[in-house]
Order: sequence, then structure tokens, then C-alpha cells
Amino acid sequence: MKYKIKSELVYEVYADTAFFLNIQVAKSSSQHVISELFTVSNDIVYKEFLLANNETRFVKFNAKQGQTIQINYETEVEVFCEQISRNQLLQATEITDLDNEVLPFIAPSRHCESDKFFKFANKEFGYYQSNFEKVLAINDWIFNNIDYTPGVTSSNTSANDTLVQREGVCKDFAHLGIALCRALDIPARYFTSYAYQLSPPDIHACFEAYIEGEWIVFDPTKLAPLNGLVKIANGKDATEAPVASFYGNTYCTQMNIECIAIELFNEIVWDGEVGGIVY
Amino acid sequence: MKYKIKSELVYEVYADTAFFLNIQVAKSSSQHVISELFTVSNDIVYKEFLLANNETRFVKFNAKQGQTIQINYETEVEVFCEQISRNQLLQATEITDLDNEVLPFIAPSRHCESDKFFKFANKEFGYYQSNFEKVLAINDWIFNNIDYTPGVTSSNTSANDTLVQREGVCKDFAHLGIALCRALDIPARYFTSYAYQLSPPDIHACFEAYIEGEWIVFDPTKLAPLNGLVKIANGKDATEAPVASFYGNTYCTQMNIECIAIELFNEIVWDGEVGGIVY
Amino acid sequence: MKYKIKSELVYEVYADTAFFLNIQVAKSSSQHVISELFTVSNDIVYKEFLLANNETRFVKFNAKQGQTIQINYETEVEVFCEQISRNQLLQATEITDLDNEVLPFIAPSRHCESDKFFKFANKEFGYYQSNFEKVLAINDWIFNNIDYTPGVTSSNTSANDTLVQREGVCKDFAHLGIALCRALDIPARYFTSYAYQLSPPDIHACFEAYIEGEWIVFDPTKLAPLNGLVKIANGKDATEAPVASFYGNTYCTQMNIECIAIELFNEIVWDGEVGGIVY
Amino acid sequence: MKYKIKSELVYEVYADTAFFLNIQVAKSSSQHVISELFTVSNDIVYKEFLLANNETRFVKFNAKQGQTIQINYETEVEVFCEQISRNQLLQATEITDLDNEVLPFIAPSRHCESDKFFKFANKEFGYYQSNFEKVLAINDWIFNNIDYTPGVTSSNTSANDTLVQREGVCKDFAHLGIALCRALDIPARYFTSYAYQLSPPDIHACFEAYIEGEWIVFDPTKLAPLNGLVKIANGKDATEAPVASFYGNTYCTQMNIECIAIELFNEIVWDGEVGGIVY
Repeated sequence: MKYKIKSELVYEVYADTAFFLNIQVAKSSSQHVISELFTVSNDIVYKEFLLANNETRFVKFNAKQGQTIQINYETEVEVFCEQISRNQLLQATEITDLDNEVLPFIAPSRHCESDKFFKFANKEFGYYQSNFEKVLAINDWIFNNIDYTPGVTSSNTSANDTLVQREGVCKDFAHLGIALCRALDIPARYFTSYAYQLSPPDIHACFEAYIEGEWIVFDPTKLAPLNGLVKIANGKDATEAPVASFYGNTYCTQMNIECIAIELFNEIVWDGEVGGIVY
Repeated sequence: MKYKIKSELVYEVYADTAFFLNIQVAKSSSQHVISELFTVSNDIVYKEFLLANNETRFVKFNAKQGQTIQINYETEVEVFCEQISRNQLLQATEITDLDNEVLPFIAPSRHCESDKFFKFANKEFGYYQSNFEKVLAINDWIFNNIDYTPGVTSSNTSANDTLVQREGVCKDFAHLGIALCRALDIPARYFTSYAYQLSPPDIHACFEAYIEGEWIVFDPTKLAPLNGLVKIANGKDATEAPVASFYGNTYCTQMNIECIAIELFNEIVWDGEVGGIVY
Repeated sequence: MKYKIKSELVYEVYADTAFFLNIQVAKSSSQHVISELFTVSNDIVYKEFLLANNETRFVKFNAKQGQTIQINYETEVEVFCEQISRNQLLQATEITDLDNEVLPFIAPSRHCESDKFFKFANKEFGYYQSNFEKVLAINDWIFNNIDYTPGVTSSNTSANDTLVQREGVCKDFAHLGIALCRALDIPARYFTSYAYQLSPPDIHACFEAYIEGEWIVFDPTKLAPLNGLVKIANGKDATEAPVASFYGNTYCTQMNIECIAIELFNEIVWDGEVGGIVY
Repeated sequence: MKYKIKSELVYEVYADTAFFLNIQVAKSSSQHVISELFTVSNDIVYKEFLLANNETRFVKFNAKQGQTIQINYETEVEVFCEQISRNQLLQATEITDLDNEVLPFIAPSRHCESDKFFKFANKEFGYYQSNFEKVLAINDWIFNNIDYTPGVTSSNTSANDTLVQREGVCKDFAHLGIALCRALDIPARYFTSYAYQLSPPDIHACFEAYIEGEWIVFDPTKLAPLNGLVKIANGKDATEAPVASFYGNTYCTQMNIECIAIELFNEIVWDGEVGGIVY
């Protein structure tokens, strides 16, 4: 599936500021970048680098007090997301047989205090046989029990807060999903992407759970088609896949995102019955 | 109903310590103290005083480093708890028609952060018509969703922690009940008592909700018969009805509680259908 | 000292809402209300009532969806605040000799988790001889270590948050002061008032500590002259002295406060050396 | 410097349990393992694997309900820790010139909520010129302001709690150190080790800060000589360098640790003036 993505960001710089941006789509075997243009205004020289298994792409640069910085990113990208049949996902790997490199994704992280959720997760979701069914139930539980309310949470908010206060935005939904998976010893990670048909258009946060050797994507907001995502990054939580980090003082005055399909898009009506989707 | 209560407490005093104890049964129109004996060892002179509408009884004294303090309390008390019919409780008073003196019991308190529970309480219990049905549902929800696990919580634990961690003891159950009531604008308060047939015998914590002009008692642990309580105190939460407070350094080495019926006890099998019980 | 106070509040009512307001000045032996006018628009019938030892004054009424409610309050009041000499305040009452009715103000409350601050309070302020010196040190410590930053805190914020995040507004400063006093076994309470020369004019929150039989006022923001306050209410914390509580859905669109001296104001340059001020 | 290390762990297994242990010393250019013996009782087959840049060594195995598992680890290891002169450490790298792979260590993590500490860290330590001086000041501040009190914290405790409650053990000291460094944009990570002369002997937690291209070790407990450590692992916090993780139900009934110098040990009396130590 081919998409055209445009991202335009404008920042006012109130004091000298170091910028770190993670808005470029990931390059991986399932994502082919056909063309790409990244520009920063004011003749600023930026550097690109990779983190997290050389898949997550960052740009860094310094801006001076008083500057108005405009960042433009345009790309055409072909995405080959894969569908895994439900049958393949209903097995149960023992924890000592898990791939070693996914073990860190069972541990709690800044925004996902899974160490506090053992009782709740086991009571609410523990009776399902397979990990796939447990994560499906988690995903539906969040969708049904947490209100999508822009503006009520902040960058300090974590899954513990969201479980109590029952509202938040996509990043809060994702953090709660991750925390509940990990409380059941299921590896889970944060996933950022551009999202087809997301309204209003924005960078979207979902989560992935590691089930039978595959990172299956889940979106507890149910705001975008699950096969309409263009991956930017993954990480333990938002601290490892931050769209933008600043050291200094700056303010985003404009953010325009576009994610257009340049082929006919066939939505997979995904309800868990058809299996899982992998990026 | 008549009870005989014995309370024996022994403390080792590691540094000079001021003791404040609230272990004597309340004297009120529904509770008649037939006889009572309170002694403190080591020839210590103690003072009695009343707080909270002259119903909650405290004893205070100073103990010296190195002392072993034994406190003995024995009382015979007749309790007239009243049953309110379910019909009488199914009305709905507007908040501005509530008795003014109960308004402070809608506000959050140290262990009952009701200000964080609006969404959850309304989603989970909001659809019931009457406040009585809402509190019945809260009581059952706590009983069904929180594990009674001695030792996992501390004196710092509050309803927010218990809602996430899903375990605690009677005080934690009570605090969560209070917080959920207040989040629905129902006045609620903490209630300590001796409890007939509680096993192991201890001072018990429940909660009361103010419904149609009456403080109806609820026990989300369901560990004692609701008409088998002998009231000690009430307050916003454990901070206002503390069994014992110390300023210094002391350690309780022994605590023996007895609550014996000295008449035939007729348990009211209370399931909400029969109405509510008032002390 | 005589003041003229004007308070104008305008609310848009989005859904039927019960209003509880606590904006009228306290009537007490140290505060004489010369004249007073309180009006609510839309022919709304309101009721007045008293809480907390009959000193704190509330008004309650119901407003209907779609209404724009204007509340006007004007009063002339004479305030007789008293100065207590430093010498009188340097004694040390034993905790068991404290007046019983102030004991509840040593316990932690919703916004003042003094139970978590024992170590910090004792390390930082414990070495002072008298309670008065301890509270003076607390007051200065807050002024020096917490930034006054409007907008960073919410109605959920408590002393624990403020101690970590080091910023807030007057209510947060007061809550931290109270919590630190209580951690040192000094009774302390929240105090709301109109404040002469406060800029911008607003309802102000300070705290009082109970020292040698007197409730001495402290203002860790140092934003208003300590002898220029007109008391509205006191309570354990903001939950017991809330300027306004709503049950429904409404939004304050305008709030104009004025506090004018109608006599020559002589500021007591209060630095702790002159003693304490009592309202 | 050569050490002989013995670690003996005994576990009672109450339900089938998956064990993950990270008690073997790291193999790196600065640490040469001369000999090593690792055994698990009950003929249990274990697997070894590496995480985190192939330096952190894990062992995993499954144990059955009812088993008593004894784990023995013995090693002789030569450690070449290096001393970096103070002069070399007093520079100041711009954040955009930092090595990219250390950037994740500026982000907050489960036990190190640096995102809440900006104000405090900058007020208290911000005025030092260089990062090295800032971290020295953080290390001393923790040593002077936090009490070393075994048993008061749990595996849920994080830097936010420790900053308020002012007590903890080595892991809590380390987490607070890390959080304060990151709040000042200094990369910092958790460091576990065997420690010469630590009393009682145990696995020790310290932290490292990234200063001028080197991971300098700091021990805010000051309980062991800084050049007497034998590195086990590093990670963002204890979640990434856990001594032991269990999935099931087991209890450690015995833990004996020994760390003996088998050469003459020359303690570097490290006070920050001599520079920093790197493992």
C-alpha cells in the first residue's frame, strides 16, 4: 500500500534550543521509502542518526533565540503490513522460551507501571486461554472504559493515572495497554505512526504485543484502520519514541500532518477474528 | 443487643511517647454503656476528651522511655441499631437540600481522593436510579474486585492505590467505598467498631453513606454481620478516627480483642433488599 | 482597620448546576461586618448557612442550563488583627497539653500528606528550639524554594507534588506549609481571605499554625502584607474552605475582586522578629 | 585488581516458576574473568544469554513447585578500572554533540521520573559550571539528605518517593541520583556490582553519569570504595538490571555473598578532587 505523507512544523524559539525530532517514517523490510524530502528553515544544519536497532530515525539541530523554525517533511512510502491468522496466534509460548531480545519489554517503564497492575490484569483478563485473546480483551476494555478526551493529560501522565481517571488521548490509551500486557507477562511496546483516515490528522500512538514470535499491533482508540498505519518508531513507551524533544525553550505554533493513500485503500475490517496485523 | 467487649493492648516504649487512643465505644442515643473499666498500667495518669460532636472518645497520656504499658478496656454495652426499609431509601434528595452539616463528607480527604474518581464512579455506578442502589453496587463491586490481603498496605495507602492494586484490608476497603460515594456526590464517612463474630477479632473499619437523611452502614469486606457492630467512632477517613496515634517511639507487642454477645444474637441477613442499618 | 470589598463573579451554566460559594467574609470577634450586600442574578433564591464552628459562611443555590449567573458581593468590614510578641511564642507546649479541639489539625488531609514528610521536616526544620521558629523557617523555605507559577497546578495538586515539582500558586504554597507543620506535630490549617494590595487582586490562600494557644497566620508567598487580610474561612485544607464548589457543569467567565482600605493602612513590616499576627 | 566472588542463593519454589538471574559479572574490556563456576541444583538445565550490548549476562531456567533450588556462583575476576583526571571532566559538551547512543539515558524511566525534577535539580545544582561538578553535588546531596534505612522501601519505590520520604537503600539512592542527573540533561544509568568491603556483603547498586565521553561511577551511599567494584550490569534503572526476576511463586530463603580481594587493595580515597572512576 502506497501513501504520501506531509508534515509541516513551525516553532518559535524563545531561547537557544537543541531539537531532536523523530518524525521520519521507519525504514524496514516492511516499509519502503520511495522518495523523501526533509528540510529545516534558516539554513540550519541538521544531523540524522538512528537508534533502537537502526530502525528509529532522529534528526537533531540547534536553533537560536528569536528564530522561527519551519520543518517540512514529505515522503512517499510503500508499506507491506502482514496479516497473521488467528490460529497461529492462539498458542502459548512459555516465558523462558521467549526470544531473549523481547524480555526488556516485559519490564515496567516510566509511563507503564505494570508492577502495580498484577492483580487487576489477572482478575480482569487472566482467564483467557491465549495471550492473543488476553490482549484483544485489554484492547476492548480500554476502548470501552477510557474516554478519549484531548487536553486532560500531560507528558507526565502514566498508566496508573489513566486507570484511575479513565480519560486521555492516544498515548495514554497505548501506555495503559502496554502496562496491562506486561502485568500479564506479555511483552509490549509503544508504536508511533502516521495514520490513514485519522481525524484530525496527527501522529498517532498505538501499541504492539509480542505474540507467538510476532509484534502484533493494537489500537485501543479504534480511530484509524489497523492496516492504514505508516510506522515511525517503537520503544518501551513514549520516552523512547518521542515525536520531539527540546532542550531550551521553544513553542510549536503550527503542525500540519497529511497522510494520503495514493492507491486504492482496502480496509481490513479487523475485529480480532481475522487475526493480527504486523508492521 | 448486649455485648461484652475486652481490649488489651501492650506497648514497649522506646522513647518518651505521647499516646492518643480511640478504643472506647461511642456513647450515643443508639448505644448505652452499661458498665466500663479503663486502666493504664505504671500508675500513668490519663485524660479523657471528646471530639467530633462529642461522640468520639479519646484518652491521652505520656509514657516514659523503657516503660511497658498495658492498657485494659472492658465494657458492657447495649446497642440499638435500626433498620430502615428499602423503600424509604430509594428517594433522591437534591444536593442543595442535603443537611448542611453533611456537606463536608462529600469533599475528598487524605485517604479518599474522590476528586480523581468522577469518571470511573459515574461509568461504573452512575446508571442506578437512587443513591442507595449506587452504594449497594459500590459495596458489592469492592467485595468482588478487591482482595482482602493483610500486610500489603500501610498507613500511607489511599483509595487511589487500592483502586489500582486491588488488595488491602478493611480500612482500605472502607476508604475506597467512601471515595467512590463522594465521587457520586453522596456524603460518606469512615466508621470504626468492635465487630461480633469477626475472625480474627480486631477493631473493624467500615463506612457509612448518607442516604435520605440517615447514615447507613456498609461493610465491603462482608466479614461481620452488619447488625453486630459496636461503634467506636466516625470521621472523614482514618485520619479522623484513628485507633491509636503516637508521638514518640513505641511498638505494640500485644493486642487482644474480644467482642462477645451476652444475649442471643439474631443476624439480619442483610443483602440490600431488606433496606439499611443505622447506628 | 476598615476595608471595602467587592467581588463580582459571572458563570455560564452548561447544565443544571448546584452552586456552593464561600466568598463572604467571616464574622468573628476580630472581624466586624459594617455593611454587606449579596445578590445573585436571574431571580435565583439562595440560602445561607454556616459550617466549621459557625464561622465559615456559605451560600447555596441551583442554576438552570443556559443561564448566565452574576454574583455580586460588597461589604465594608472592620478587622482587628492582633499582634503577639515573639517572646510569648517561643514556649513549647507538650502535645498532650494542646487544646483538644486543635488535634485534628495535626492529622494529614487530602492536599497535605504530612505522613510522608516526617524525615524531611525533621531534618530541615527540626533543630529549631521552638515551634514558632520552626514555622518561620518553613515559611521562608517555601518562599525561597518554590516558584510562584500560575497555571502549572490543578485542583488535584497536593503538597507531595509541590515538594517535588517546586512550583505552584498560593493554595499550593499554603498546603505545603501546612503539611510541613503537621509533620512536626504542629497543628496547622488553611486560611482564605481577601488581601489588601494583592496584585492581581484575588482571593488569597495562606495558612495558620497553632502556637502557644494562638492561630498565627503565615503567608509563604509574601505577596500581601500580613496585617492586610480579611478572613473568609479556615479549614484543614482547600477541601474544607473551598471558594466555590459546583455539582453540574458551569464555567466562570469573569471574576473581579477589589479590596480597598478605607482608612490609612499601616503595614506591619513583619519579619518574624516582631512576633505573630492573629485574626 | 583481582577479586574472588562467591554467591550462594537458595529458593523455595511454591508454584512452578521461571527464573531469570543477572548475578554473573560482566565481561568487558575492563573486566577479565579468570575462572568461573555457575551451578543450579536439582539437575536443572539453564540457559545463558546476553542483553544490552552483549555485556549483561542472564541465566534463565524453570523450576517446579516444591523444589528447593540452590544456585552457586564462584568467579575470579580481574578488574581494570580507570581514573580520569578532574581536568578532563570539567568541559561541557553541547547536548547535540553527545554520542547518540547515550541519548536514551537522558529520558525518564520507571524508577527515575526526571521529568518532575527540572525545577528542583536546576535550583539546587544548576549553578555549577560543569556537569562533573553538578553530579558531584548531587552525589553529596543524596548522601547528606537521604537516610540509609533498610526495609522502608519496596520494588515499587521510585525517585519521586525517595525525594519526599528521604530514606531508602542503595537502589533508591541510585535511582534518585540518576533522576537528578537526567533532569539536568546529563545521561545517567543504573550500575550493579559486587563491592569490596561492603558490609553486610550484598549486591550493590550505584549509578554512572556520562561526562565528557566517559561513564563515571558514583555511589551516593558511600558504603564501598569506588575502585572496589566488580561490575554485573548497567541499565536505565533497576528494571533493566534486575538481580533476579521471577514468574511464578518463589521465595529466597538464603543469600550469601562474598567479595574478597586476592591482591593487596589500594583504596583510592575518592572525593571528586582526584577525578572520576570508569569501569
